[in-house]
Amino acid sequence: MPLSQSTRNKLKTVSTATICTALYKRGLRNQMIQDVRPLDSSKPTMVGEAFTLRYMPAREDLNPVTVFQDRSHPQRKAVEECPPGAVFVIDSRRDPRAASAGNILVSRLQVRGVAGIVTDGGFRDAAEIAKLDIPSFHNRPSAPTNLTRHQAIDINVPIGCGDAPVFPGDVIVGDADGCVVIPADLAEEIADEAVEMTAYEDFVTEKVLEGRSILGLYPATDEQSKIDFAAWRRAKGR
Amino acid sequence: MPLSQSTRNKLKTVSTATICTALYKRGLRNQMIQDVRPLDSSKPTMVGEAFTLRYMPAREDLNPVTVFQDRSHPQRKAVEECPPGAVFVIDSRRDPRAASAGNILVSRLQVRGVAGIVTDGGFRDAAEIAKLDIPSFHNRPSAPTNLTRHQAIDINVPIGCGDAPVFPGDVIVGDADGCVVIPADLAEEIADEAVEMTAYEDFVTEKVLEGRSILGLYPATDEQSKIDFAAWRRAKGR
Amino acid sequence: MPLSQSTRNKLKTVSTATICTALYKRGLRNQMIQDVRPLDSSKPTMVGEAFTLRYMPAREDLNPVTVFQDRSHPQRKAVEECPPGAVFVIDSRRDPRAASAGNILVSRLQVRGVAGIVTDGGFRDAAEIAKLDIPSFHNRPSAPTNLTRHQAIDINVPIGCGDAPVFPGDVIVGDADGCVVIPADLAEEIADEAVEMTAYEDFVTEKVLEGRSILGLYPATDEQSKIDFAAWRRAKGR
Amino acid sequence: MPLSQSTRNKLKTVSTATICTALYKRGLRNQMIQDVRPLDSSKPTMVGEAFTLRYMPAREDLNPVTVFQDRSHPQRKAVEECPPGAVFVIDSRRDPRAASAGNILVSRLQVRGVAGIVTDGGFRDAAEIAKLDIPSFHNRPSAPTNLTRHQAIDINVPIGCGDAPVFPGDVIVGDADGCVVIPADLAEEIADEAVEMTAYEDFVTEKVLEGRSILGLYPATDEQSKIDFAAWRRAKGR
Amino acid sequence: MPLSQSTRNKLKTVSTATICTALYKRGLRNQMIQDVRPLDSSKPTMVGEAFTLRYMPAREDLNPVTVFQDRSHPQRKAVEECPPGAVFVIDSRRDPRAASAGNILVSRLQVRGVAGIVTDGGFRDAAEIAKLDIPSFHNRPSAPTNLTRHQAIDINVPIGCGDAPVFPGDVIVGDADGCVVIPADLAEEIADEAVEMTAYEDFVTEKVLEGRSILGLYPATDEQSKIDFAAWRRAKGR
Amino acid sequence: MPLSQSTRNKLKTVSTATICTALYKRGLRNQMIQDVRPLDSSKPTMVGEAFTLRYMPAREDLNPVTVFQDRSHPQRKAVEECPPGAVFVIDSRRDPRAASAGNILVSRLQVRGVAGIVTDGGFRDAAEIAKLDIPSFHNRPSAPTNLTRHQAIDINVPIGCGDAPVFPGDVIVGDADGCVVIPADLAEEIADEAVEMTAYEDFVTEKVLEGRSILGLYPATDEQSKIDFAAWRRAKGR
Repeated sequence: MPLSQSTRNKLKTVSTATICTALYKRGLRNQMIQDVRPLDSSKPTMVGEAFTLRYMPAREDLNPVTVFQDRSHPQRKAVEECPPGAVFVIDSRRDPRAASAGNILVSRLQVRGVAGIVTDGGFRDAAEIAKLDIPSFHNRPSAPTNLTRHQAIDINVPIGCGDAPVFPGDVIVGDADGCVVIPADLAEEIADEAVEMTAYEDFVTEKVLEGRSILGLYPATDEQSKIDFAAWRRAKGR
Repeated sequence: MPLSQSTRNKLKTVSTATICTALYKRGLRNQMIQDVRPLDSSKPTMVGEAFTLRYMPAREDLNPVTVFQDRSHPQRKAVEECPPGAVFVIDSRRDPRAASAGNILVSRLQVRGVAGIVTDGGFRDAAEIAKLDIPSFHNRPSAPTNLTRHQAIDINVPIGCGDAPVFPGDVIVGDADGCVVIPADLAEEIADEAVEMTAYEDFVTEKVLEGRSILGLYPATDEQSKIDFAAWRRAKGR
Repeated sequence: MPLSQSTRNKLKTVSTATICTALYKRGLRNQMIQDVRPLDSSKPTMVGEAFTLRYMPAREDLNPVTVFQDRSHPQRKAVEECPPGAVFVIDSRRDPRAASAGNILVSRLQVRGVAGIVTDGGFRDAAEIAKLDIPSFHNRPSAPTNLTRHQAIDINVPIGCGDAPVFPGDVIVGDADGCVVIPADLAEEIADEAVEMTAYEDFVTEKVLEGRSILGLYPATDEQSKIDFAAWRRAKGR
Repeated sequence: MPLSQSTRNKLKTVSTATICTALYKRGLRNQMIQDVRPLDSSKPTMVGEAFTLRYMPAREDLNPVTVFQDRSHPQRKAVEECPPGAVFVIDSRRDPRAASAGNILVSRLQVRGVAGIVTDGGFRDAAEIAKLDIPSFHNRPSAPTNLTRHQAIDINVPIGCGDAPVFPGDVIVGDADGCVVIPADLAEEIADEAVEMTAYEDFVTEKVLEGRSILGLYPATDEQSKIDFAAWRRAKGR
Repeated sequence: MPLSQSTRNKLKTVSTATICTALYKRGLRNQMIQDVRPLDSSKPTMVGEAFTLRYMPAREDLNPVTVFQDRSHPQRKAVEECPPGAVFVIDSRRDPRAASAGNILVSRLQVRGVAGIVTDGGFRDAAEIAKLDIPSFHNRPSAPTNLTRHQAIDINVPIGCGDAPVFPGDVIVGDADGCVVIPADLAEEIADEAVEMTAYEDFVTEKVLEGRSILGLYPATDEQSKIDFAAWRRAKGR
Repeated sequence: MPLSQSTRNKLKTVSTATICTALYKRGLRNQMIQDVRPLDSSKPTMVGEAFTLRYMPAREDLNPVTVFQDRSHPQRKAVEECPPGAVFVIDSRRDPRAASAGNILVSRLQVRGVAGIVTDGGFRDAAEIAKLDIPSFHNRPSAPTNLTRHQAIDINVPIGCGDAPVFPGDVIVGDADGCVVIPADLAEEIADEAVEMTAYEDFVTEKVLEGRSILGLYPATDEQSKIDFAAWRRAKGR
């Protein structure tokens, strides 16, 4: 089920926190990619379908720097094959002691129209990557070449990333809180529900900052909260 | 022993580092809340008496999203009961894999005049919380709803936070280095001593940046250092 | 083999990521100081020869605050003896639960012309240290006095820092990605090679951002890539 | 709902592994006390209702060795109050760097008829405790007195132990794999179901060791498997 | 290159420690599966070619207990397909919080003539598995069903296990120190070299226990050591 | 202050747990070597003065296997120089991923009359070392040669081991709970006090197993407890 433009647009307007709650209501508790953060937290929300790369631990004899002379090396091949609009997700086995990728590869992804990149390891050239337009997420900067610890072994297979399950085609959303994985077949309904939840949360935030108590308001157990929200939506056109 | 306005004001002018040294002189070595950081490190120093919330691991059957429809749910109750001027301290068992709280609750605390909030877990909506006026401290952002891993169970009991002991009423001070816990009955004398220490440290910093050696100056084992400091205090009116 | 001004200047123009690859080609895989970051990532690249301080775990009876009244205390002695142009490297056994140093000592190092400071623990007064001109790197801020956990025991001996081996005189380079240790006898050749690699990487980055594929370009397996690079170098005067 | 003798007896005949699967079927995934092991893995299965003790981080000034002269000290009080047949469960915040208890207290629990003891920290005198008749579970041996890091603060409140939620009265079962927490109101049905599951697993194990494939047998998707099991039960009288 | 009976036999007589040194001489430093141990350390040395199973993090909706009713479920399929004489190696992402397998599956592997099993997670029914004849290695016992955290996703692909790279067909050797991975094409020469090294180490051990210094003996830098060893080999027939 | 035979003998009769309490009374809280265990927990208590070896992270070019051909290599030199009756203590930076030593070196230490060996890393040939007469303590078995991660750099300097400070000449005591470090100048008084404490603890254990409550007995706040103990000592001749 490909990600529609409409669902993509909706997801760009909601937070990973709201999405997590919508997933939680469906019994999905482990969809947050744990312990990754944006290299630049001021970027707009990242949305796209997962295109994955799996790393395994590097064996020294198989990973001289010359491996990249092979055009079919999985890391380089994946960078050229990741579809525009997708999010490039790397399973680095939560190991940031060597880089998952660097500025040149991320620049190439940006030029190719890729929607973003996330690894549960780290990026080298982190300061340069932060300045690119493409959103990027990692655990921490890491200068050593990926060959030091990681060998790219599989393209677009199901992986783990930050302890979350990621299947190719799942929808990845990333903001300042990190990245969440929405199962492909739930993306549309989660997007719809999250848009509704966001409207209510925005209303609540406004009321709370105006001084109202959260009791009866969050959640809306007071009838008046629902009435006020209906009025607010009309006034805001949401 | 409530925190006096005078002590509160003094503590706002000193650093957690200076306070740690004053506590160390009294044999207290574990009062720093380990591994928490401010969401916005440019905020003024946070000072207030601890009001605590204890989380235990969440059991799935007890934590549907509907639990918050109960107005006496400990998390919501605590947010409405935390006294103005206090610091809301959450024992999240050092687990940031689910949120300790989010923007709406922290906004409510701000409106209620609470002095700050600290968890040894993480906050969701971290970027929004950072923009509020209330100082906030956590380990890292965390989008999943607290129900995913945390169940609020006790209000205002003694807790651990970041491996530090926190008793209700202890005085919490937070700055860019993190948060420190001052036992309630020591707050006044620590404040006084820290103000004195800060004066000397400011003097030393000034002299060091002017080129003086630290030997004999820091600590003041040279008589001249004491004489110069006395003159400096007079000149500065401190 | 002292670090020449020419090598120092070259290293200031290259990244730790590029240096790591040059070291990797020589079989050196563990020269990155793991999990340290700059207090201010906007500072210029730090370069200098390592001058080391070794901490051991503190024993309570040996570490009252009065120890610093001894002018020959290794921590204070090291700060006064570290040569201008050197990088002060502290083995804190990867333990940031107490400070490795604070603003006054780092200020003194700056005034003495020291090139930078790195610890695999943490600094207190982190916000103030970040504002100094001297580059500084640590794991995270840490307010408690170093006496709480660390006892300075040896000056300028071989140490571990962030799991990397550091011998006095090794060349430390630090940027936004962290710090790397270049064995002293390799510094000149690594600097030369890294300057060449950087030229090619800058060329590649430019071409990639212009839309060229990485295949055949990175690495330069296409003859045309080499021709274009030669032309680029002439045009750029590099 | 107190634990009946019948349920207790059934639980003594099943494994924590089987119980975990029965809990999993009901959506309970975090009931295993993580990373604890028996001091003596040859003891019979431990079963009893949880009686809890909560530790918080110790503050030095509150924890001289003289605290135990107070007969109402929560640690000592809890040892004298824990009911016969119960399991004494300690929340040590997963910190085994100081002891949770030692041989004398565990001996006292044994004499008082307590069914067992578990901590997510460690015991001192571990070799002696292993030789007692009472089953005991911890993370690893730990000689330092509990006062070094732990202050007993609450008796028989809900706690976390090894990341699992434990409410007073929940039923704890422990064997060589570790300890599992059965919510009190599920104990009877879990016991019944686990006894049934164990019968089938024993049958399967026997057949597998005789050479049968697991396909169709485990789970029993082949009709023949069900027929054979019925015959086996009749033959075995189970 | 299949593992010959001769090489298999040789490897059964040498230790993982000796093999690690032989690999180290060839530049291979990460072939030890880190932090796994035998369930029964008295078993003979395990030797066999790797047959792998890859787990990814479990998603709740995809892992009801009913999944095992599918005969082609990768975990069950792998157990039936693993060749006799092979070692079943599971990539559990170093996560022992849920089981990698239990007694029934390991029993089936034993009956099928599999040479051993290793996971970098944990086994349930650990005490029963320890009593089987088949050698088994894990991190620690873990009772929760694998569905709780692990979803079997790939059979016989390259994986990581305990931070070591494992390719199908690599030779796994396991003893009381743990498990080591020998690249398939090196197995024969490593076996030969390790047999020679073992002879010398046995000679050295004997001489050291008789009182000889290690200097000149270990390694054999004294000519006399070589002469004595030659005599010892003749006497021992090795 | 050398360790007298009398003090050595006393320490052989007391536990590390009792010693920790005696140290705690003197304000020493971090003298336990954390997270090490005996390879054979049935050995008698180990006692001896610390003779230390410091490892730093290994640099690949400095650590070919040929380094041991140098008779002055610090690891081998230390093994030949460690005095009879001493305990060989290795600072492996808490890293058990490569061996700290193996069977041959430990055998040599045994023959030389060394009292024991402890590392905060791991030993290779762990099963063989366990069978020697010399007591040995580590974190876990580790087959890779020490050169893989450790370079011996300093003999008999102050070190950290398992987060505890160890000065040459400190007295190390090891039993089933692990190893504790007694500052050299306290060894005699700690030994005396621990012998007294042990007598009382043995008395208490006996009484508790006979059914007496711990209240008033442990500690001896009831006068009767003191009277009974005096009688017990006379009866036991202690």
